[in-house]
Amino acid sequence: MNLTSIRIRTAAATLAALAVVGGVTVSQTPAMADPGAPAVVQTNVLSADAALKIADAVQKEAAKQKQRVTVAIVDRSGATRLILKGDGAGPQTEESARRKAFTAVSFGQPTSALSKNQALAAIPGTLLLAGGIPVASGGSPIAGIGVGGAPSGDIDEALAQAGLKAVQGQLG
Amino acid sequence: MNLTSIRIRTAAATLAALAVVGGVTVSQTPAMADPGAPAVVQTNVLSADAALKIADAVQKEAAKQKQRVTVAIVDRSGATRLILKGDGAGPQTEESARRKAFTAVSFGQPTSALSKNQALAAIPGTLLLAGGIPVASGGSPIAGIGVGGAPSGDIDEALAQAGLKAVQGQLG
Amino acid sequence: MNLTSIRIRTAAATLAALAVVGGVTVSQTPAMADPGAPAVVQTNVLSADAALKIADAVQKEAAKQKQRVTVAIVDRSGATRLILKGDGAGPQTEESARRKAFTAVSFGQPTSALSKNQALAAIPGTLLLAGGIPVASGGSPIAGIGVGGAPSGDIDEALAQAGLKAVQGQLG
Amino acid sequence: MNLTSIRIRTAAATLAALAVVGGVTVSQTPAMADPGAPAVVQTNVLSADAALKIADAVQKEAAKQKQRVTVAIVDRSGATRLILKGDGAGPQTEESARRKAFTAVSFGQPTSALSKNQALAAIPGTLLLAGGIPVASGGSPIAGIGVGGAPSGDIDEALAQAGLKAVQGQLG
Amino acid sequence: MNLTSIRIRTAAATLAALAVVGGVTVSQTPAMADPGAPAVVQTNVLSADAALKIADAVQKEAAKQKQRVTVAIVDRSGATRLILKGDGAGPQTEESARRKAFTAVSFGQPTSALSKNQALAAIPGTLLLAGGIPVASGGSPIAGIGVGGAPSGDIDEALAQAGLKAVQGQLG
Amino acid sequence: MNLTSIRIRTAAATLAALAVVGGVTVSQTPAMADPGAPAVVQTNVLSADAALKIADAVQKEAAKQKQRVTVAIVDRSGATRLILKGDGAGPQTEESARRKAFTAVSFGQPTSALSKNQALAAIPGTLLLAGGIPVASGGSPIAGIGVGGAPSGDIDEALAQAGLKAVQGQLG
Amino acid sequence: MNLTSIRIRTAAATLAALAVVGGVTVSQTPAMADPGAPAVVQTNVLSADAALKIADAVQKEAAKQKQRVTVAIVDRSGATRLILKGDGAGPQTEESARRKAFTAVSFGQPTSALSKNQALAAIPGTLLLAGGIPVASGGSPIAGIGVGGAPSGDIDEALAQAGLKAVQGQLG
Amino acid sequence: MNLTSIRIRTAAATLAALAVVGGVTVSQTPAMADPGAPAVVQTNVLSADAALKIADAVQKEAAKQKQRVTVAIVDRSGATRLILKGDGAGPQTEESARRKAFTAVSFGQPTSALSKNQALAAIPGTLLLAGGIPVASGGSPIAGIGVGGAPSGDIDEALAQAGLKAVQGQLG
Repeated sequence: MNLTSIRIRTAAATLAALAVVGGVTVSQTPAMADPGAPAVVQTNVLSADAALKIADAVQKEAAKQKQRVTVAIVDRSGATRLILKGDGAGPQTEESARRKAFTAVSFGQPTSALSKNQALAAIPGTLLLAGGIPVASGGSPIAGIGVGGAPSGDIDEALAQAGLKAVQGQLG
Repeated sequence: MNLTSIRIRTAAATLAALAVVGGVTVSQTPAMADPGAPAVVQTNVLSADAALKIADAVQKEAAKQKQRVTVAIVDRSGATRLILKGDGAGPQTEESARRKAFTAVSFGQPTSALSKNQALAAIPGTLLLAGGIPVASGGSPIAGIGVGGAPSGDIDEALAQAGLKAVQGQLG
Repeated sequence: MNLTSIRIRTAAATLAALAVVGGVTVSQTPAMADPGAPAVVQTNVLSADAALKIADAVQKEAAKQKQRVTVAIVDRSGATRLILKGDGAGPQTEESARRKAFTAVSFGQPTSALSKNQALAAIPGTLLLAGGIPVASGGSPIAGIGVGGAPSGDIDEALAQAGLKAVQGQLG
Repeated sequence: MNLTSIRIRTAAATLAALAVVGGVTVSQTPAMADPGAPAVVQTNVLSADAALKIADAVQKEAAKQKQRVTVAIVDRSGATRLILKGDGAGPQTEESARRKAFTAVSFGQPTSALSKNQALAAIPGTLLLAGGIPVASGGSPIAGIGVGGAPSGDIDEALAQAGLKAVQGQLG
Repeated sequence: MNLTSIRIRTAAATLAALAVVGGVTVSQTPAMADPGAPAVVQTNVLSADAALKIADAVQKEAAKQKQRVTVAIVDRSGATRLILKGDGAGPQTEESARRKAFTAVSFGQPTSALSKNQALAAIPGTLLLAGGIPVASGGSPIAGIGVGGAPSGDIDEALAQAGLKAVQGQLG
Repeated sequence: MNLTSIRIRTAAATLAALAVVGGVTVSQTPAMADPGAPAVVQTNVLSADAALKIADAVQKEAAKQKQRVTVAIVDRSGATRLILKGDGAGPQTEESARRKAFTAVSFGQPTSALSKNQALAAIPGTLLLAGGIPVASGGSPIAGIGVGGAPSGDIDEALAQAGLKAVQGQLG
Repeated sequence: MNLTSIRIRTAAATLAALAVVGGVTVSQTPAMADPGAPAVVQTNVLSADAALKIADAVQKEAAKQKQRVTVAIVDRSGATRLILKGDGAGPQTEESARRKAFTAVSFGQPTSALSKNQALAAIPGTLLLAGGIPVASGGSPIAGIGVGGAPSGDIDEALAQAGLKAVQGQLG
Repeated sequence: MNLTSIRIRTAAATLAALAVVGGVTVSQTPAMADPGAPAVVQTNVLSADAALKIADAVQKEAAKQKQRVTVAIVDRSGATRLILKGDGAGPQTEESARRKAFTAVSFGQPTSALSKNQALAAIPGTLLLAGGIPVASGGSPIAGIGVGGAPSGDIDEALAQAGLKAVQGQLG
């Protein structure tokens, strides 16, 4: 059986039987033992279209609440997907939003929940302040949304949630 | 005629009803919904002339108090506006002064006040030691002044205040 | 006549007669000579709303042309205003788009025109490949749009132009 | 038709009819215009198992040719997938191998071919020396293999090819 | 004949009386006083072959435990020897694994033991979370293995131990 | 004669007879051979007062010529002494001015003269564009002045010269 | 004749009344007010000869105590004066030694004393672990010696002291 | 014959007959095929004692020639072994000396010879200016000596050679 057919089955009905974690279909064939093991795995990635909708929703909600914030979206690979600095947002918000998003997608939890585990703060790229939430698809984190700039992390998190809500129905 | 009215007329007449925060006239028109929304907002920025006056005043006061310090001024955009390393100031002062200034303009408060909120210290670029103060215009932070090098943060802050005083009357 | 009155006239009808460059009304009063010199200058900044419209237009045009690109918008201060990485855009595109935008707003010209002057390539943050164009308001650059990822810089530049077109009428 | 069914067809026989580029199934629905547009796209990623096989094959071939090299594998996201520094490989090889891999996956071509286009060398993260080759699946680059340390780039490239050969049959 | 005697003969017969520490035969001849002091010392380094075996064993054990992790191996010189990012491992794992490995080889102890001494966390490059263990040869650390990505550091450390076990018999 | 007396003569009238280079009185006693060799050398450093005068003069001249520039002053140690970003100066000017100043003080020549030797451009921190000039005292470079932002390097250099002129009489 | 009188004569006769701090003769003339203020101040710098002696003494003492350490010497300007990595010293020692030296010369105190003031640890470049000591001349810090690699900071500090002792008599 | 015996012979008289490259005895056993393959290889490293002698000799020769230079020594691992900044050496010399040393040990040739191959200049960490030379032992590069600061690379290289000469007899 070749790779292509494996992927077909993965994406179709048998998917539930596989260990699908982190947006990735993980081969469980022992490494280096099986010459027929698949060389390709499929990963779910947030679309650019969805990223734009999230950013738009965050900024609209921020305008309603008269908050000046930056919103960032980071992929499960750690790559920046989107940055949008709102009008008048402070100079610290690009990096704080990006790190909140990075942290949320890394650990698959909101940064507000993670802030209880301060040991994680030593890992480069993380920021354990409220305002970062994961975007999940198929039960696994595929991206993180981070918002920075409001006077409290609770507000930042609420704005991030407003962004997530804009695409929640299309995440599968 | 004061500055606020100038900005109002510039951006077009209907801007008078908008919230002006952070030195920025924020459009509240929902993003992407109104094709006529303004594409340009006006931001107040500290002048180079004022930056030089602040630095001069800080160094004069430092000389009086026999302190060897560096003074930094950072814009609301996060860009460095001025660095002046005083005679004999330590090698750590350029970065400590710059970060104090960055922190003060980011949060619109003196770093001495912010130091109670140590969670903010995890945000890249910040430094929660006394010696950084915001420069406000129209009720919003437009720059930060940071001073580093004195034996205590209180002295650094007093020197920063001496710098602010030199331009306070011209901030509008 | 003092500086304040100059700024008033600047913001009003006589603006065209003043030396307004770089989105900034430059005081011509000799520095440190006039205690009444203004401490604040006004700068035009692209709105977040406009940034989002530009990004949306770039990605729509890219989809039409089946190009996978990243679009970046950088302020005249050098701060990132927007990053949007398109579906399937290469890993090099975030930085190439950002640098094209930085270069265009720095020099007020398209990067395709600047590429004739390779000496500028040595300045940190610049990239002299086609695909970056300035956004001007009042005759001065207030932002740069950079696009990266298409097989040729000409296509990148055309996509950036599509973005600019979306807000051209609102730049004043 | 919902998203899941799209993905199924993509992975099966109709794939050729879709615009599949860069290891990504690109939605062609105009951004922000269609509320039902998919929020998730699927990306092919090289498996860790395959990465290990590639590294093993490169080092075995290097041992045969008595070359001391480092092999690197970089994802289409730009993230490092694998680094293996061979015995006695020089200190420059980690970064040269990584950048060759990054360049090959960015542009979907061997670095030996790209070296004719020196303008690309200005893009951060790239290295236009022979020794980097793309790994393609479904007609699109999903990773890059980079080898550094041999006396000539031709040898580095041959070693990279030996690595690719080890998984070529499983790439689909 | 064991390894120690090999090293002794290599450096010349009189070396047997010297202290061998840290994988290095340290000359105790006072510096700059003895023109005949050896200019070369021999250091034990983990082989690339062993590095690959460790990585393979870690990933196999991780697959068994359904963990998605990255494994890193760092030399006593601080150079990266191996990085292997497992399928679906989070974006934070490359750097967390690398730093755990760096920390373990720097101090010659597991990071789980070092985490009691938080003062060390201020040293650049370190990470005091469980998951890093030293690889010793001749009583001295010659490399560090770091694993990141499991929900707890204990699991990361167990995976690292599985890697070490794969080469333990060949370390001399 | 011991070191102390050497320094005395250096500081007094006979300075011309000594090997005084780079703002430093170099001991010619063979290293490590003479236990009485001096542990301290004296270096001339530009005063903060002079730095401020230079910056003020540069900006005044720039205002006259309607140029928007940044001026930087770098010590012979490589440390930043002053940065002043003029109103409306581009985002690239802080780093271009700083590097021009660094280059001029490193090589003791104007960057316009050094630009003929492009091999130097590979040294980190340098920039071989006109606009950087050394500040000499006692025949050696003690600082560099760099100006960036004018449409041509010739203008940048002329502005730097205007700054130097302001303190030329006090350099000894 | 002592050093102070030398410096007095150098800078002109009126300097005797000035405060000499930090190895620098600070002008107290109000900035920008006195056109005759000196543009040059003299700074004491540790000689390369002394740096080499310190490093030699540290390594000799380390050999006696069978410690594998790195020694670093940093100028008051913050520039690295010397790095010497001992045989078998860990990979973390270059940076830990450098930062201890930087910290000691910045604050003019041993890092063991400074470690009581953990707020300083937030300043970039500092490290508040024992092992860094200042080198003073004329009552002011002119350099810092940092040692890293011993099992405890107390030993590191003792080794640094052994280095300082080697030049103490020549510091003036 | 197994690997262990190979190492034994390597360390004894037959070393010349083996493929010993880069200061490393390379195992030629195919990776991952032989469970008994050695996990440890031995590497020759320049001693700290020799590094100090080289630095001393370079600075003595520089003093003779009245040159103000920095000397750097870098290991085959890429780690800094020694930095010594001479009195009055320019701020660019630390990094230029370090990179020349890095380049020489990476490619096993003097940087003056490598400068004919400018393609290598794109590899991070390299500098293709004369003044870097390799230190070889057993026919392989174990370190690089780099000198920067003289008016021409030829002089820098001659000074590096003076350093090498000081330990040439003890390199084995």
